[in-house]
Amino acid sequence: MISIIAVSNELELMTNCSLDELQEDYIKWYWIDFNEPTEEEIKELDHSLFFHPLAIEDCIHKLQRPKLDYYGNYSFFVTHRLNEAEIEKEEINFFVGENYIVSFHHLPSKEIHDTWQLLLASKKLSKWDQYLVLYHIMDKIVDGYFPIVYQLEEALDQLENNTKDQTMEQLLEQLFDTRHYLLKLRHTVIPMRDLVYRMLNSHRLRGIKRKKEYFSDIHDHLLKLAEMVDANRELTNDIRDSYLSLNSHQSNRIMKVLTVITTIFMPLTFIAGIYGMNFKNMPELTWNFGYFLILFMMFCIGVGMFLWFKGKGWFS
Amino acid sequence: MISIIAVSNELELMTNCSLDELQEDYIKWYWIDFNEPTEEEIKELDHSLFFHPLAIEDCIHKLQRPKLDYYGNYSFFVTHRLNEAEIEKEEINFFVGENYIVSFHHLPSKEIHDTWQLLLASKKLSKWDQYLVLYHIMDKIVDGYFPIVYQLEEALDQLENNTKDQTMEQLLEQLFDTRHYLLKLRHTVIPMRDLVYRMLNSHRLRGIKRKKEYFSDIHDHLLKLAEMVDANRELTNDIRDSYLSLNSHQSNRIMKVLTVITTIFMPLTFIAGIYGMNFKNMPELTWNFGYFLILFMMFCIGVGMFLWFKGKGWFS
Amino acid sequence: MISIIAVSNELELMTNCSLDELQEDYIKWYWIDFNEPTEEEIKELDHSLFFHPLAIEDCIHKLQRPKLDYYGNYSFFVTHRLNEAEIEKEEINFFVGENYIVSFHHLPSKEIHDTWQLLLASKKLSKWDQYLVLYHIMDKIVDGYFPIVYQLEEALDQLENNTKDQTMEQLLEQLFDTRHYLLKLRHTVIPMRDLVYRMLNSHRLRGIKRKKEYFSDIHDHLLKLAEMVDANRELTNDIRDSYLSLNSHQSNRIMKVLTVITTIFMPLTFIAGIYGMNFKNMPELTWNFGYFLILFMMFCIGVGMFLWFKGKGWFS
Amino acid sequence: MISIIAVSNELELMTNCSLDELQEDYIKWYWIDFNEPTEEEIKELDHSLFFHPLAIEDCIHKLQRPKLDYYGNYSFFVTHRLNEAEIEKEEINFFVGENYIVSFHHLPSKEIHDTWQLLLASKKLSKWDQYLVLYHIMDKIVDGYFPIVYQLEEALDQLENNTKDQTMEQLLEQLFDTRHYLLKLRHTVIPMRDLVYRMLNSHRLRGIKRKKEYFSDIHDHLLKLAEMVDANRELTNDIRDSYLSLNSHQSNRIMKVLTVITTIFMPLTFIAGIYGMNFKNMPELTWNFGYFLILFMMFCIGVGMFLWFKGKGWFS
Amino acid sequence: MISIIAVSNELELMTNCSLDELQEDYIKWYWIDFNEPTEEEIKELDHSLFFHPLAIEDCIHKLQRPKLDYYGNYSFFVTHRLNEAEIEKEEINFFVGENYIVSFHHLPSKEIHDTWQLLLASKKLSKWDQYLVLYHIMDKIVDGYFPIVYQLEEALDQLENNTKDQTMEQLLEQLFDTRHYLLKLRHTVIPMRDLVYRMLNSHRLRGIKRKKEYFSDIHDHLLKLAEMVDANRELTNDIRDSYLSLNSHQSNRIMKVLTVITTIFMPLTFIAGIYGMNFKNMPELTWNFGYFLILFMMFCIGVGMFLWFKGKGWFS
Ligand SMILES: [Mg+2]
Ligand SMILES: [Mg+2]
Ligand SMILES: [Mg+2]
Ligand SMILES: [Mg+2]
Ligand SMILES: [Mg+2]
Ligand SMILES: [Mg+2]
Ligand SMILES: [Mg+2]
Ligand SMILES: [Mg+2]
Ligand SMILES: [Mg+2]
Ligand SMILES: [Mg+2]
Ligand SMILES: [Mg+2]
Ligand SMILES: [Mg+2]
Ligand SMILES: [Mg+2]
Ligand SMILES: [Mg+2]
Ligand SMILES: [Mg+2]
Ligand SMILES: [Mg+2]
Ligand SMILES: [Mg+2]
Ligand SMILES: [Mg+2]
Ligand SMILES: [Mg+2]
Ligand SMILES: [Mg+2]
Ligand SMILES: [Mg+2]
Ligand SMILES: [Mg+2]
Ligand SMILES: [Mg+2]
Ligand SMILES: [Mg+2]
Ligand SMILES: [Mg+2]
Ligand SMILES: [Mg+2]
Ligand SMILES: [Mg+2]
Ligand SMILES: [Mg+2]
Ligand SMILES: [Mg+2]
Ligand SMILES: [Mg+2]
Ligand SMILES: [Mg+2]
Repeated sequence: MISIIAVSNELELMTNCSLDELQEDYIKWYWIDFNEPTEEEIKELDHSLFFHPLAIEDCIHKLQRPKLDYYGNYSFFVTHRLNEAEIEKEEINFFVGENYIVSFHHLPSKEIHDTWQLLLASKKLSKWDQYLVLYHIMDKIVDGYFPIVYQLEEALDQLENNTKDQTMEQLLEQLFDTRHYLLKLRHTVIPMRDLVYRMLNSHRLRGIKRKKEYFSDIHDHLLKLAEMVDANRELTNDIRDSYLSLNSHQSNRIMKVLTVITTIFMPLTFIAGIYGMNFKNMPELTWNFGYFLILFMMFCIGVGMFLWFKGKGWFS
Repeated sequence: MISIIAVSNELELMTNCSLDELQEDYIKWYWIDFNEPTEEEIKELDHSLFFHPLAIEDCIHKLQRPKLDYYGNYSFFVTHRLNEAEIEKEEINFFVGENYIVSFHHLPSKEIHDTWQLLLASKKLSKWDQYLVLYHIMDKIVDGYFPIVYQLEEALDQLENNTKDQTMEQLLEQLFDTRHYLLKLRHTVIPMRDLVYRMLNSHRLRGIKRKKEYFSDIHDHLLKLAEMVDANRELTNDIRDSYLSLNSHQSNRIMKVLTVITTIFMPLTFIAGIYGMNFKNMPELTWNFGYFLILFMMFCIGVGMFLWFKGKGWFS
Repeated sequence: MISIIAVSNELELMTNCSLDELQEDYIKWYWIDFNEPTEEEIKELDHSLFFHPLAIEDCIHKLQRPKLDYYGNYSFFVTHRLNEAEIEKEEINFFVGENYIVSFHHLPSKEIHDTWQLLLASKKLSKWDQYLVLYHIMDKIVDGYFPIVYQLEEALDQLENNTKDQTMEQLLEQLFDTRHYLLKLRHTVIPMRDLVYRMLNSHRLRGIKRKKEYFSDIHDHLLKLAEMVDANRELTNDIRDSYLSLNSHQSNRIMKVLTVITTIFMPLTFIAGIYGMNFKNMPELTWNFGYFLILFMMFCIGVGMFLWFKGKGWFS
Repeated sequence: MISIIAVSNELELMTNCSLDELQEDYIKWYWIDFNEPTEEEIKELDHSLFFHPLAIEDCIHKLQRPKLDYYGNYSFFVTHRLNEAEIEKEEINFFVGENYIVSFHHLPSKEIHDTWQLLLASKKLSKWDQYLVLYHIMDKIVDGYFPIVYQLEEALDQLENNTKDQTMEQLLEQLFDTRHYLLKLRHTVIPMRDLVYRMLNSHRLRGIKRKKEYFSDIHDHLLKLAEMVDANRELTNDIRDSYLSLNSHQSNRIMKVLTVITTIFMPLTFIAGIYGMNFKNMPELTWNFGYFLILFMMFCIGVGMFLWFKGKGWFS
Repeated sequence: MISIIAVSNELELMTNCSLDELQEDYIKWYWIDFNEPTEEEIKELDHSLFFHPLAIEDCIHKLQRPKLDYYGNYSFFVTHRLNEAEIEKEEINFFVGENYIVSFHHLPSKEIHDTWQLLLASKKLSKWDQYLVLYHIMDKIVDGYFPIVYQLEEALDQLENNTKDQTMEQLLEQLFDTRHYLLKLRHTVIPMRDLVYRMLNSHRLRGIKRKKEYFSDIHDHLLKLAEMVDANRELTNDIRDSYLSLNSHQSNRIMKVLTVITTIFMPLTFIAGIYGMNFKNMPELTWNFGYFLILFMMFCIGVGMFLWFKGKGWFS
């Protein structure tokens, strides 16, 4: 669907202009939103708006990283919002010209919807222009990254303390997934950060220079996010190493205890074997208290070994 | 084979010029393609086209990385296409001068063939020049990298989930191979990216400056590729670590269970050994229910140890 | 609470001005401190002092990294003090204008309190201005980082030598915590270092340029801190690796000794088993000294194996 | 030995000038080679050629990295050739002045010998100057690195596939040695690359600027070498990890099989032990087919456990 | 102790001037050395020499990294000498002004002592100035780093080949210590390198510019040192990994052999157990050669298993 808001020189909002009417002189600036456009509607980018074929290709394809391209008298932005439910990137593209902004997205965007309503409800229309629209949308996009990072941080917290009493396999798999999400997040946050940095320092984007404080604020958030993502990736490393080493240590300890038990019984069983031999001439067998003596000897050997191993610390 | 396309000032395509005829005034620009050249044909680079011996050496030898050299009034490019079947680099070299492009390749190149056909079939000959030829070939070369990365990503996906139920050895070997391919890919993608970056920012390549959007588009793709390759290399690390730790954990678990079983039978066997001793005077042996008592005792000890180990969690 | 110190042109200290009075001509410069401000007081940032809404938002929110923003005729700083007891960041914000400094903090700050007292007690009022206030507070904030790093270094020292005779699990958990603290510290020290670097090199902060030596001294300390934090993080790596390898080596050694003992008794028990068989015709059983011969043989085998394993070094 | 070639203004080669004669006006340019110089000959650097004491010190000492120093009207280069037999660095130093080059080396250098012969046999003397001498020697030095890298790559190939059927210990030691050689190679290739980069971009070396294509060609080779060395170092990491994990996995598998065997025999031996007990009243012992029943029971238990373990996959 | 050397305009050495006399016109330049100064003497830095309080603070405190600060008409340097016996940093500070150098150190310095003697014994006083003093001291300081690196390299060599036949624990602890020393060394060498680099490129240090070759020589040495330290740190990594993997492999091999022995005896002992059972009706027991048949069978099983395991390579 293509929606249009135009602001006239008299600061009146018009929401039912046609694409052709937008070029009229009484239009101060306008915003066209391509929301889940049909193939027919996409063609308007070329036929009515005359954008460069490479930029249009970038709109259509899903392959893009966040970036900024200059084309003659307009700029083209690719940004990524994050779908909170599935931590999946969704591309939003912008064309920003002298007196217009065109937003383009294959999937519905809460950020654009909210900004649209904000503009419709605004009482200070004189303050708005296409760059303020861009700021509001990007601010909301970046604000939308935080809940996802918080969610991952919380997951890591739970994994660190294993509050849900899960098995090793489950913990490792979740940790692996969390690392994977953080890697994907990184590939959104870092290029977004670089994009906003370029916007702030570009000599061609005068409108952004005038609103420098606003876009700086977004840049701050992206710096913070990049730091959080990297710190959390390091944390996953630490958590995994700490898991594995504790687990292997525990496993070793158990094997040690079991083997100590086995080792204590070996000589005892051997002694029992000796007196189970059927030699004709075995004096001990005929002693009256031979059995009890041997039992006592076994007891001593068993306890002795136990104490010896315990003393060496092999039992804990 | 040496093939030639020349475009005359009247925008007529000529495909049967000789090398000598190309210098005539009525030629606007031309493209010479050295496809699997013979030794004789290679000598034309020197004798007819007068290129620098070092550039010709770079054409002949296989040692080169993607790069850009300036020689007086022409530039020399080394690029790498990838052979999809074997993930093997194949060098394609270009000489780009004031009104010509010379392409040189020891192996047939789909990219050059397709661009050649595109030019032959073009209806807007006025739009073409040597830089547009270069753009189309490089665009196709870089587009040719993606299927290979996708193929490796898919292989990693299968390895991650072990959909083919392979043994540890097979998985590790395939992972090792995948890492190796990614490393090789990296050594193609990174220098290509740097090459295109230099092309975009060079003060000597006016023709590229005029088509900046086109070469920027290639640069975008190379940035994306570099990111994908690096992310996938990180992923192989994660997959391997996760394999190894899960495998070693599983192996530990099995050993633990086996050792617990052994440990439970040790004292039982020992007790049986005791009553197998042949002492004359062993009161228990003569008790009427001695045997059943001992059997019951063994049963209790066995079950007791089993429960104790189970309670300690050593059995899972 | 809002506290105010104003210095008049005659270098008199005034501590009971109202916010409105500060704009008078006879005020040379002033310092307003927002210490644990109420919601009402926070509104003064906007109503009386007219700061930019984004800067005020940064004051209120806890999300910030240390940074420096320029707003028209004042600059806005975010800094982090560290709460020594819990190694927790606490934000302190500054607005520095032509003839004033405004400090803002949600939690009480020893650094600000001490500087306040210093200024009240100062006898050379002519030397003071808003930048000297800023210097003194930041100097104290950064000096406050050192005890924490020293504390962590001491903890690492104790862990390295395990002076408290702790178990592996305890050691690893403490090491993990120390790494975590160092990571958090890093995220305070690095942005603070970059902030002071920007202050030193900014063309807009003339007052800091004039006191360059002072802020350079803070920068030195931050460089030193960053180096210490990184070196200590590397040290935690080394300590953990050295723990784990020693522990695993020790564990292996114990298992080896236990298994050697088991292995020595295996053939002995087997021999005893042989002569425990009940075959009718077993000549050895009837020999007069068969039993003692076999005992001696067992002794030889046992000692032989022991010496053989010892010779191979499998016993230590 | 000190050898001299001088070229006169009439382009005649003179090979028996004395050091003093070289300053004459009819000499266009000259090359002095210090090949395995005696202490006496080394003094000529100071007495006859008046080079700076620090540069002479750098000639004599073995401590140097490849580098470039400017001294008034001459430049001083330190380069490293590699002794192919032992992968050992050998320093070659150059002084390059307005009309001369001085080469200095403690050990004989094939590169210098070959260039010397090339110059003696040259028919286009007008093309030669001191920079062409420098180019030819450095080109040969850098070409001499390749066989060593190829040799190491081949060694890695053999190690990867263990074509020689070596034990783990031998493989690991060879891998360790290969890593060590690669590290040493890296410390030659990286500073040489940086040296040639500086030569290419230096404003003081006009002679090199004029031969830019030639020295760029060397730079290409060094870039390629640096990439190969780094990739091979990464490969050694991968090979080692893959060794160790496969080996440990195999070792685990063997232990598992052995332990499974042991575990199967434990209960069987225990049962045999039970019926080896000497209780008076053991009804089973008197059953006619008790023995065969028990044998059959043991067989069932053994096979059952075997199948059970096999079913669990603990046997492969 | 405060020692003074002054050089008069007539190039006469004076060693017994007072601090006050140094300002006289007939003094060309002078050197004041604060060697293990008392608290009283330290005060002269402020009272007689009027240095900046922050620089004096840096002299007194031990916290400093090597660095360079500019104060009006003098520069302040912090450098680190290394105490060879304990590999401990010792700070030496310099103030370098228009016609003086002041050196300050809490501990005696061989480097300063030697330079002092060199100056006293010099016959070419005209060549000396404060920068030559600085060069000589810094050259000696940096030369003093080499023996320590060589010492560590030798220690690594011995560890690599375990020439002293030490246990694993001892080797690992020494390796850990060596890593620690290298890390400490790195924190001296890297800032010293950066300091000398800044000295070489500073626009404010004209005296150093004039002696550029000399300070470049020191910079060379520091570059070399940084490379050696980093290479040696990588080497410690390699050595440790190679230790651990060889050790663990050896340990696995031993366990395998022991377990194979145990596994061979398990079925034999079981068979002996069978014929130790007391069933009434066990036909084999009454066979005339049953015993010898069973013995032979046991021998066959034992040898068979041994050969089978040996064939599988589980015995080496
Ligand atoms: Mg798109
Ligand atoms: Mg925001
Ligand atoms: Mg906001
Ligand atoms: Mg903000
Ligand atoms: Mg971090
Ligand atoms: Mg990462
Ligand atoms: Mg080629
Ligand atoms: Mg493309
Ligand atoms: Mg395309
Ligand atoms: Mg594109
Ligand atoms: Mg890599
Ligand atoms: Mg990445
Ligand atoms: Mg790594
Ligand atoms: Mg705040
Ligand atoms: Mg301080
Ligand atoms: Mg201080
Ligand atoms: Mg870190
Ligand atoms: Mg200081
Ligand atoms: Mg470090
Ligand atoms: Mg030398
Ligand atoms: Mg070459
Ligand atoms: Mg070449
Ligand atoms: Mg060549
Ligand atoms: Mg690489
Ligand atoms: Mg490396
Ligand atoms: Mg000091
Ligand atoms: Mg020196
Ligand atoms: Mg020297
Ligand atoms: Mg030197
Ligand atoms: Mg290195
Ligand atoms: Mg390091």
